[in-house]
Amino acid sequence: MKDIQSQLDSRRINIKKVGVKTVSYPITVRDKAQKRQHTIGTANMYVNLPHKFKGTHMSRFVEILNEFRGEIDLKSFSIILEKMKDRLEAEASHLEIDFPYFLQRKKNGEEQKRGLYKCSMHGSLEDEDTLKLSVEVPISLPITEKTSQRLPGLMGKWGKADVHVRFGQFFWIEDIILLVEKAVEEELTDLSTRERKQLSVEALTLRVGTSLKGIEAIKWFSVTIHNFGDDCSTFATMESGRDIA
Amino acid sequence: MKDIQSQLDSRRINIKKVGVKTVSYPITVRDKAQKRQHTIGTANMYVNLPHKFKGTHMSRFVEILNEFRGEIDLKSFSIILEKMKDRLEAEASHLEIDFPYFLQRKKNGEEQKRGLYKCSMHGSLEDEDTLKLSVEVPISLPITEKTSQRLPGLMGKWGKADVHVRFGQFFWIEDIILLVEKAVEEELTDLSTRERKQLSVEALTLRVGTSLKGIEAIKWFSVTIHNFGDDCSTFATMESGRDIA
Amino acid sequence: MKDIQSQLDSRRINIKKVGVKTVSYPITVRDKAQKRQHTIGTANMYVNLPHKFKGTHMSRFVEILNEFRGEIDLKSFSIILEKMKDRLEAEASHLEIDFPYFLQRKKNGEEQKRGLYKCSMHGSLEDEDTLKLSVEVPISLPITEKTSQRLPGLMGKWGKADVHVRFGQFFWIEDIILLVEKAVEEELTDLSTRERKQLSVEALTLRVGTSLKGIEAIKWFSVTIHNFGDDCSTFATMESGRDIA
Amino acid sequence: MKDIQSQLDSRRINIKKVGVKTVSYPITVRDKAQKRQHTIGTANMYVNLPHKFKGTHMSRFVEILNEFRGEIDLKSFSIILEKMKDRLEAEASHLEIDFPYFLQRKKNGEEQKRGLYKCSMHGSLEDEDTLKLSVEVPISLPITEKTSQRLPGLMGKWGKADVHVRFGQFFWIEDIILLVEKAVEEELTDLSTRERKQLSVEALTLRVGTSLKGIEAIKWFSVTIHNFGDDCSTFATMESGRDIA
Repeated sequence: MKDIQSQLDSRRINIKKVGVKTVSYPITVRDKAQKRQHTIGTANMYVNLPHKFKGTHMSRFVEILNEFRGEIDLKSFSIILEKMKDRLEAEASHLEIDFPYFLQRKKNGEEQKRGLYKCSMHGSLEDEDTLKLSVEVPISLPITEKTSQRLPGLMGKWGKADVHVRFGQFFWIEDIILLVEKAVEEELTDLSTRERKQLSVEALTLRVGTSLKGIEAIKWFSVTIHNFGDDCSTFATMESGRDIA
Repeated sequence: MKDIQSQLDSRRINIKKVGVKTVSYPITVRDKAQKRQHTIGTANMYVNLPHKFKGTHMSRFVEILNEFRGEIDLKSFSIILEKMKDRLEAEASHLEIDFPYFLQRKKNGEEQKRGLYKCSMHGSLEDEDTLKLSVEVPISLPITEKTSQRLPGLMGKWGKADVHVRFGQFFWIEDIILLVEKAVEEELTDLSTRERKQLSVEALTLRVGTSLKGIEAIKWFSVTIHNFGDDCSTFATMESGRDIA
Repeated sequence: MKDIQSQLDSRRINIKKVGVKTVSYPITVRDKAQKRQHTIGTANMYVNLPHKFKGTHMSRFVEILNEFRGEIDLKSFSIILEKMKDRLEAEASHLEIDFPYFLQRKKNGEEQKRGLYKCSMHGSLEDEDTLKLSVEVPISLPITEKTSQRLPGLMGKWGKADVHVRFGQFFWIEDIILLVEKAVEEELTDLSTRERKQLSVEALTLRVGTSLKGIEAIKWFSVTIHNFGDDCSTFATMESGRDIA
Repeated sequence: MKDIQSQLDSRRINIKKVGVKTVSYPITVRDKAQKRQHTIGTANMYVNLPHKFKGTHMSRFVEILNEFRGEIDLKSFSIILEKMKDRLEAEASHLEIDFPYFLQRKKNGEEQKRGLYKCSMHGSLEDEDTLKLSVEVPISLPITEKTSQRLPGLMGKWGKADVHVRFGQFFWIEDIILLVEKAVEEELTDLSTRERKQLSVEALTLRVGTSLKGIEAIKWFSVTIHNFGDDCSTFATMESGRDIA
């Protein structure tokens, strides 16, 4: 690594970030119903380096991840960020893990459809650490048999909700999924009494946003509702923070 | 290339296919309304080699394509296949080109939405040459305002139709797209008089299949209708050939 | 479902296949080192229906999968195929499961890089049942430090091997991965003594093919080696069956 | 739209952005060698709305795009942004267009490989308008025959460069591509005299960054070099602005 280092010393330009992308791992995440669930995580890890850059050891990123052997939860998330900042002598460290999450629904004790939801956790450690959870909730219609009767609709993929939250206390992924589904159901109930029965991305964004606002544990959120069409999709986004709003 | 050749002679195993994948090109395709349309083709080209394999010159594939400079139509398709078979001393040659196709709709002279359709042409030259055209037609609901009123439905991506045809005479891509859309519209009209208003993949597959069967120029076809759900999609496929059926 | 059935009876066209696509599930697969490994499967399930088609119950596909709760191995694979054929009164049943497989390498007792390999199992039950295992093995260079010294090469993604096998006895996924890597290493060793140091897709295909041919448990195989370039990739394919060859 | 509006008035939450995504269009872009080149653009269009939100007319986005019929260059980009801001009574407007760009290389007058490069233009109009051009340049090795001889390397996809620039005057996409390729070639030349022949993402990032810094027309840039491995890829990023640096 000697020659890289000397080279970097001679030019005075700032390397802003270095890291690794798409490291895949079997991981376990917390699950409200089953306590723990096995899934697969795909991680990006990177650090901001101080101006006086001395060459990085890329292998250290994967070494740190290896030490946790897939047992990654909120606590290990923080420790990984600290180890990255420490061992790479960095100004800031960042960890992003994408993973599919399965929600097993039951009805009268019987297992129903098992939905897959794309989730991710993004953490940063600079002066203080921040953590953001993202969940993508598909919106297919009709949601329930009741919706189906009220609006003799045609099943299909209407769109999706992208929800991002920063929270003060632990918050279940399940609860975000169910919150979105409840909001869609309520919006459909309201629509059934109106002349114009079209679900609008703006109205649904506001409904989900209002629900998220009511949750004490959430410090900040952003929600985007997408409606898929064949030529293009439409979307609306809102965000809100306890400190801002 | 000497060492590859000698190596291949000493072992007596058959290399079945060699070729190139994902060569991208600006191409022009025929368009019913505008005569020609500019688009981008992504080609796979490969040949079957005789048992006595002498090593291939991969660069020849791209050389042949370069000679056509993006002017690729049914006629050049056949010539490319012949050149490949000839110059690579092959037993059979294959050419597959994927391309997006734009259909500009008009209403009262005004331009409406411009739909993008994934298409592909697959040609083979062995003893005789065969040509297959594939078109993917998205099915979004409601299709028209009339549908929307009859079935106060909820817009979204219901699914898609994958249509593959072999034809004796030239056949417009537009006509396949419009045939599928007409079939969906008719199925919805029928459904509006029934109690169960759910579009079924089987019924729609049969309807599109019946329409394709009525077209003289089509020698063989296969159609698959997919309905997207949030957990999984369902599908039904049928195929029919003039010679078989 | 009544109206679909009557409709189908009145027209005499053959629906060839019906089924569900992309049903995702947490599954466990056998692992040589750890006995079992947790991963995520994405299944396609479909059946061929007899001419006298009576309407399908799409929900039965997912019901059958639910009964196995993710414990899917060779034995359950066969049982699922039988249940599908039976409960859907089908002429043939098909099950395809794609899943990522992790191979944990060790060196002097220490855990090294954990590679992810895209795998799939495709089974069919018609008169007899057949099972095909597919593994995609990335080829990055240099493979080992020894290669790196012998051919002062430049690390990167050279290409990949797509291996498909039908086997009589159980066969480990690990062994396919290691077989491909050994073949690449041997080809590189041979190349280091030659003037032309370019790895060829044809030569590597033959080398992997020759290794697969030597394995008694494998009844049939197909192997395709791809070399990635920036404009396009090149490939060579061979296949061989004990009965054919 | 009446009911959406009243609903929005009663709650006082801010919709931040509304718009359309993935509208595809045949477009023409400027090309140094051929003057104009036909390609396909995929656009996202969105606006920031004032607090007193009155409901959006999503169809207006596509109407505006339709008026330009694919003739999209720097000038029309600005006009589209203005029309969006104006007709949607927005505080800010945003337009992002992704498109593949083809670079036809010649050697002794003969056409050589035609490379495809993923590009995008992102423009925003708030108080003033800003425009960012992004180009993804694949890095395959060896770059030239000379490299191949000096470092008897093994062809393959080494990685890619993601370059983003804001410029004061017009700047050719070709020139960014060639700048990256020249930097790789120079780095390889330097490496050939060193003991450690490994291309490093940090050193290459600095080399490309230094080149971009020397160009007067560029006001700001960010460059990320990625090296693909089979398990994960590594990357380094730097950015620099005339005002900042």
